[in-house]
Amino acid sequence: MKINGERLWDLITELGEKNRSHNGGINRPAFSQADREAIDTVIKWMKEANLNIRVDAMGNVFGRREGTQKSPVVLTGSHIDAVPNGGMFDGVAGVISSLEVMQTLDENNIKTTLPVEMVVFVNEEGSRFPGGTMGSRAVIGELSEDVPYETLDDHGETLYSAMIKYGAKPDNILEAKRSPHEFHSFIELHIEQGKVLENLAKPIGVVTSISGTRRLHVKISGKSGHAGVTPMDARHDPMVAAAIVIKEIEKIATETSPLTRSTVGYIKALPGGVNVIPSAVEFSVDIRDTDQENIEKATDRIKHNIKSNCKQRKLECEITETQNSEPTLMSVDIREKLKGFAQELKIPTTELTSGAGHDAAVMATVCPSGMIFVRSKDGLSHCPEEYSSKEDLELGAQLLLTVVKNTATL
Amino acid sequence: MKINGERLWDLITELGEKNRSHNGGINRPAFSQADREAIDTVIKWMKEANLNIRVDAMGNVFGRREGTQKSPVVLTGSHIDAVPNGGMFDGVAGVISSLEVMQTLDENNIKTTLPVEMVVFVNEEGSRFPGGTMGSRAVIGELSEDVPYETLDDHGETLYSAMIKYGAKPDNILEAKRSPHEFHSFIELHIEQGKVLENLAKPIGVVTSISGTRRLHVKISGKSGHAGVTPMDARHDPMVAAAIVIKEIEKIATETSPLTRSTVGYIKALPGGVNVIPSAVEFSVDIRDTDQENIEKATDRIKHNIKSNCKQRKLECEITETQNSEPTLMSVDIREKLKGFAQELKIPTTELTSGAGHDAAVMATVCPSGMIFVRSKDGLSHCPEEYSSKEDLELGAQLLLTVVKNTATL
Repeated sequence: MKINGERLWDLITELGEKNRSHNGGINRPAFSQADREAIDTVIKWMKEANLNIRVDAMGNVFGRREGTQKSPVVLTGSHIDAVPNGGMFDGVAGVISSLEVMQTLDENNIKTTLPVEMVVFVNEEGSRFPGGTMGSRAVIGELSEDVPYETLDDHGETLYSAMIKYGAKPDNILEAKRSPHEFHSFIELHIEQGKVLENLAKPIGVVTSISGTRRLHVKISGKSGHAGVTPMDARHDPMVAAAIVIKEIEKIATETSPLTRSTVGYIKALPGGVNVIPSAVEFSVDIRDTDQENIEKATDRIKHNIKSNCKQRKLECEITETQNSEPTLMSVDIREKLKGFAQELKIPTTELTSGAGHDAAVMATVCPSGMIFVRSKDGLSHCPEEYSSKEDLELGAQLLLTVVKNTATL
Repeated sequence: MKINGERLWDLITELGEKNRSHNGGINRPAFSQADREAIDTVIKWMKEANLNIRVDAMGNVFGRREGTQKSPVVLTGSHIDAVPNGGMFDGVAGVISSLEVMQTLDENNIKTTLPVEMVVFVNEEGSRFPGGTMGSRAVIGELSEDVPYETLDDHGETLYSAMIKYGAKPDNILEAKRSPHEFHSFIELHIEQGKVLENLAKPIGVVTSISGTRRLHVKISGKSGHAGVTPMDARHDPMVAAAIVIKEIEKIATETSPLTRSTVGYIKALPGGVNVIPSAVEFSVDIRDTDQENIEKATDRIKHNIKSNCKQRKLECEITETQNSEPTLMSVDIREKLKGFAQELKIPTTELTSGAGHDAAVMATVCPSGMIFVRSKDGLSHCPEEYSSKEDLELGAQLLLTVVKNTATL
């Protein structure tokens, strides 16, 4: 039984083209109009695959095929929201592969013992509304009911307001929680977003563990003033302090371990006039490692550095943790299955770790979870150049089908 | 003959309150709807002062009282556009003082020999559309006709489009030029924006020279990528390079001279996602001094520093000069007049330099020009806390009336 590689590629491409912006990248922020239109397209395709659709209060979409027994479900899926000016494969490759699995099971009239569901989780990226993997965290019951009210995007819009426009139910997000007993296992296909598979010339990877992520929102406040009038030694300029700190953030990651990564991807000066000393500078810090101790060590040093620089320059600082996820091991059972079936299918694989966070790390806290990685060209991701080949994606989806079908069949 | 201090204060306050935002500051960017509404209010008041109104293609507004002779005009005025979240006195104090002078001359049926005009120049700040003192530069014929097409605001809107919405004529800006022979002199009242007058306990200052300003727009471009996946040593991260450079910009100003100032007031990371290594970082640099040699020295060092840091980190950089105005001496004749009349009026004054640029620096290239500074509380400016007292403003406007009337009367 083979998945349809042409269809897989066509739907991935079609979804990408819908939200391509003038600068070449995908613009599909979580809970935006673009996100809504894309999920509506996916739901249409899910209906064509004869799936039983359910949308929870958070906006997560599930598509179900019943099994011959009443039992926990084998779940597979990913997300479709994208970082600003991102790529067309991140998340979408996993969602459309899951869809292709469901469609193939349907076309071949396969009766599994366990029910099988595909899922499209909302706001995995957290690039519009801080705090990623929001959909899967709601499903495992780890999202506070206050989050929609307390989370703002860069334009000051609340998550609550964006969810209402999107058609979700922010008042009822606690209802999105499902009991751990409902899940047999979770398997997510995703592009690698790194160079390990390319360097080893392997199309497919089996993930052993997922990096933890600590995210900080830093606001350094000083004293605004006229750029031409305020003497240099009378300034309390938060911009220069932010600059010193950002330079140190790179150094701290480099010194912590070869696998530690830190990134400042967002920065804003307030009020932002070219002839005004800023009153405040806000920026994000993203710290990752597969070793929790390294995350703690780097985070502590970064926080200390921000505070001591601000103290020295008589500035105020506020540091808010917007995300804190620990490194997660993937299920050994699922890893063995993935490697075994890949061998049967003659797909060259290797085991590797994931530097990026994923919904699979969240689901792993309630059920055995695993991940299939598909080779990325030049290791590029979160940018318009992000690319995985049709052939590699086809191999990944075929492996996903095989493992899902086998896992769901007793 | 006395100006009406109550009216002066009331109109300054009224104009401020129209554009006060929720965060307490004034938001009146050049060529915005807020700017349009404010200038319409000023035009209404100018008509009440029986002035003959003329608006040029650039959007500059002139209000004229004829003299008994056909001759060059004594011009006085300032601007009303504001930096983001700015103060209510910057520019407006000068415009409303000029209006008060015209109103007082009218109410007292004064016939001057020379014609007298007040002016409200557009886009002095240059904080929305780069390149400040745009209105006065159009009047002296120093603004290229390409500027409306080539100048963009932060949202990508062209100056052309904003001028059309504002009701100006961007196709005809060359017609805004007036012959130098039309001007007898220009006198601008402005708040000090510094602490010199406060420290000396003088309400009024007479400006000797105005700082030159060099403004750079810097874009450092690297390679975008996933924050969790890209190893630190494989990055071409423009954010860290920008941080290093911004720290150095402070150091270079401090090392150049005690009067050199440099400011990074605007910064933006592209695409700006918290989990994405930026593909590019853009920021502004504002360099000022009353000595042109120091401006050149600091600018050269800053440019060299940006280039060498980018080279070392294998990044691309583009540096664009968005403003280049040399330091300007004020007319000795006008300075003497201002000091003499202040003494007659028993107003304590001192001479001082201006760290900020002003339309008077532009007008000084075509006619004798001078400036009156009004004391600023705590030296604060370009922020909501900007404040000058009613009493000080009244003294400033009274001195302006006296000098304008005397200069226009042969």
